[in-house]
Amino acid sequence: MSRLDDTLALVLVDSVSGNEARLAGEVETRLRTNPVLDVERIGDNVVARTRGHHKTRLLVAGHLDTVPGDAGAARIVGDQLIGLGACDMKGSLSVMIELALEPTPRPVEVTWVFYAREEIARAESGLLEIAQLRPDLLDADAAILAEPTGGFVEAGCQGTLRVTVVMVGERAHTSRPYTGRNAIHRLGELIHHVARYEPRQAIVEGITYVEQLQVVAVDGGVANNVVPDRARCTLNHRVAPDRTKEQAVAWLRDYLKGSFEEGDTFEVADWAPAAVPALGNPLLESLVARTGGSARGKVGWTDVATLSEMGIPATNFGAGDPLLAHRSGEFVSLSELDDFAAVLGDWLR
Amino acid sequence: MSRLDDTLALVLVDSVSGNEARLAGEVETRLRTNPVLDVERIGDNVVARTRGHHKTRLLVAGHLDTVPGDAGAARIVGDQLIGLGACDMKGSLSVMIELALEPTPRPVEVTWVFYAREEIARAESGLLEIAQLRPDLLDADAAILAEPTGGFVEAGCQGTLRVTVVMVGERAHTSRPYTGRNAIHRLGELIHHVARYEPRQAIVEGITYVEQLQVVAVDGGVANNVVPDRARCTLNHRVAPDRTKEQAVAWLRDYLKGSFEEGDTFEVADWAPAAVPALGNPLLESLVARTGGSARGKVGWTDVATLSEMGIPATNFGAGDPLLAHRSGEFVSLSELDDFAAVLGDWLR
Repeated sequence: MSRLDDTLALVLVDSVSGNEARLAGEVETRLRTNPVLDVERIGDNVVARTRGHHKTRLLVAGHLDTVPGDAGAARIVGDQLIGLGACDMKGSLSVMIELALEPTPRPVEVTWVFYAREEIARAESGLLEIAQLRPDLLDADAAILAEPTGGFVEAGCQGTLRVTVVMVGERAHTSRPYTGRNAIHRLGELIHHVARYEPRQAIVEGITYVEQLQVVAVDGGVANNVVPDRARCTLNHRVAPDRTKEQAVAWLRDYLKGSFEEGDTFEVADWAPAAVPALGNPLLESLVARTGGSARGKVGWTDVATLSEMGIPATNFGAGDPLLAHRSGEFVSLSELDDFAAVLGDWLR
Repeated sequence: MSRLDDTLALVLVDSVSGNEARLAGEVETRLRTNPVLDVERIGDNVVARTRGHHKTRLLVAGHLDTVPGDAGAARIVGDQLIGLGACDMKGSLSVMIELALEPTPRPVEVTWVFYAREEIARAESGLLEIAQLRPDLLDADAAILAEPTGGFVEAGCQGTLRVTVVMVGERAHTSRPYTGRNAIHRLGELIHHVARYEPRQAIVEGITYVEQLQVVAVDGGVANNVVPDRARCTLNHRVAPDRTKEQAVAWLRDYLKGSFEEGDTFEVADWAPAAVPALGNPLLESLVARTGGSARGKVGWTDVATLSEMGIPATNFGAGDPLLAHRSGEFVSLSELDDFAAVLGDWLR
């Protein structure tokens, strides 16, 4: 059975976020067949650790869940498996299980982490659940998060800041707008400014990150004949790893200050931290060498930040094109799975 | 009992739009005490017509309803009556009832119209209800709509056009916004343009009208990490009486065209027509002369447009400051009521 068939079997087990119990159970059952692994089930998460005494412990993690969709529509076409979660990230999971079941003795200890609820709010994350209930299980000297990266090492990750801005005005009849102040017109000026944002590039430990700023939601209005006195928008700012939350908030507040007046509000709704590349770590450096020697910065936010916060040098490395994640036609190809298995297997030896 | 007391009595009868039955009943009962009047009740509307045979028939109309509020909080302070609907427009109604009950013979026939549901959607209007069921009752040579005008003749009225614009884009992850197109950013450009609108002035039959354009509602957004592919806004355009609906729509479409792309939509949600001043009509001209000789254009939309559509030369003239309408502290003063009664009484003689 090829790696495409293995991945298809995982894809066919529906595991939309919050519904991972069955897949976690199947993964747990298979891992328990390898006597060298200590397997623990924590909620809908599964952690399997080799129980030897080598000095170095490497951790490989992946999430079990997918975004919503029809798992049953998966199919193999030529050398591609097309289906929900094929790319993000059941292709990588399938290779992880294959390597975890290898009877080969290794010169390092390995921890395999399969966790739930990555695709929804961070507070729900299964990885945070393990970190809270059994942080000891996550101890490691270096870690790979096997999100799709197209076979490249994608180092670190950008932080993500969400801010809600409310702009005020003064109600008036629309036939006499000059007796009031239109809050939506004021908000239009702010959006106009944001649309002209020029992304900042930051080079951190030799890796280039490109920040972003987008308005993701907007609402306002009182009645069809009333100049509105309140309008609101939500902004999402992607933040390079050279900035803290405080620095990102201060920058954004300053960037928007020309639009603000007394009575407007600027509120931080959400923050997930960035992670530095950590490629100076010799274990991760050796991973980069095995992929051909070049690495790029991770554009989106990933749980590399969670591992990084726990003090574990971590990077993104997995099978599949990251641009296909969350798209209806997502797929993973056999060669991607083979390349990922070869590099990961080699790194663990 | 002064005119303030008469008005207070009307204000204390709650008649928020849709709830005019009791007030209509009280007005009907009082009008029936004058034997020279034919009184008809149509739904919650009351029409009273003198039954003589003079050549000229003048019509005076006012709406019974108020915007929502607490009718019971009304009070007389000095020479002002402060209360819900005091200004818009129970002060005028009170004078209308007083003059309708005068036993004085007149050289003209008079039609008094008290109608329901003016303050809500035009389709609900009691005046349209009368026009549909008993158009004969509205026959007249000239008409006054007694909305608050501060004792001036406010000629004609502006039309009001409501348009909904939907702008499209392409979804993308906010970490890679350059792979999509932000519909809210596009909408921001349109709002920016509207906020820079310079009002057009139109002089119609010697009366100046100032058009307006306002964004009155906005919404859009998919998720906090998604570049939105759709954003919507509603625009309200106030249109001078030198333009038809088609001309106003064409102008607005052209004004916004620089912001539009394929896939965007522009939909007319609502239109109420403008009305020309009609001050060339000798009956209305004589009204202007009685107020001191100057008239100004009506800024908002009024049922003068409805009367005008029926072929009746009509204008706005009533007690109370139009800027106070729909405000929580609205009031009418004794001198405003006295002046209105004097001019209206004189016009009907």
